[in-house]
Amino acid sequence: MSSILQPIPLTPDNFAPYGQVIDRNTRKPFLINEGSTERYDALAEVETGANDGCVIISLFRKPVADRFPLAVTLLERHPQGSQAFIPLQGNPFLILVAPPGAIPDLNRLRLFISDGRQGVNYAAGVWHHPLITCVDGDELLVVDRKGALPNCDEFLLAPALGLKIQTPILD
Amino acid sequence: MSSILQPIPLTPDNFAPYGQVIDRNTRKPFLINEGSTERYDALAEVETGANDGCVIISLFRKPVADRFPLAVTLLERHPQGSQAFIPLQGNPFLILVAPPGAIPDLNRLRLFISDGRQGVNYAAGVWHHPLITCVDGDELLVVDRKGALPNCDEFLLAPALGLKIQTPILD
Repeated sequence: MSSILQPIPLTPDNFAPYGQVIDRNTRKPFLINEGSTERYDALAEVETGANDGCVIISLFRKPVADRFPLAVTLLERHPQGSQAFIPLQGNPFLILVAPPGAIPDLNRLRLFISDGRQGVNYAAGVWHHPLITCVDGDELLVVDRKGALPNCDEFLLAPALGLKIQTPILD
Repeated sequence: MSSILQPIPLTPDNFAPYGQVIDRNTRKPFLINEGSTERYDALAEVETGANDGCVIISLFRKPVADRFPLAVTLLERHPQGSQAFIPLQGNPFLILVAPPGAIPDLNRLRLFISDGRQGVNYAAGVWHHPLITCVDGDELLVVDRKGALPNCDEFLLAPALGLKIQTPILD
């Protein structure tokens, strides 16, 4: 495990073990509304797990961007459903993930960067860092699940591990 | 019925008969992720109707903006589920609706304009015009339903009715 994680660009292939990349550039659209509109269909499917849940649309706003290098001290997962993040202001954001499992495998952490248009949809159970943004006041749309069952597990990492996220290089 | 429809600004109240306005300025957030992030929770709930459906995230892109005044010749509805549109490029767009019913009541058409941040979530069964955009190449995120049941009814309006949408006044 490197103690300084470097982000790599998101692609549907490299993100496949963790969920879906929401990116129209990875798909051919079909035409609707008498040919006036391109539909890039089903870039992501929302998982809701057990039947007590429903799908909600929310917005996350982070008044102050993260400071880098960023110490990684927490990962979380949502066992019941997927969670999608789509940038609303065109800003790159960082995505730190580990495969599903009882606890995150810290040897298999992967760090990605969105190009500012790409969103992600974490599959249910995928360990991920809370939202990491690079610009103050950034906003992302979130599509996830509301329901009665517990749906957030947290895993704390000791700061002494020294695991950090490198300053991203932005275009 | 006026033959030239004038748009009015969207508010949660005036759009309530047709669905939900997705607008963080209408809500107080709560704080998550150790206070770093504001969550404007459940701005919209996705309806999926019968159990054969699932929720998908798509993107609509309209290469050429509409030309105004725009003749209204078609309305549609999705009886099984809701359909949300969220602007990804900050551009105002127009929303023409009529209440649910066997056919749209043309005396009860309402035309709204988004401020470019506001999205809408059409409730199941609400009659609405296909996507109307004001800028070439505009893109909106769409959250709706995929399933086997038929989920799109269309209603054609004779052009001789002369129903038109006025040129919107944009900031």
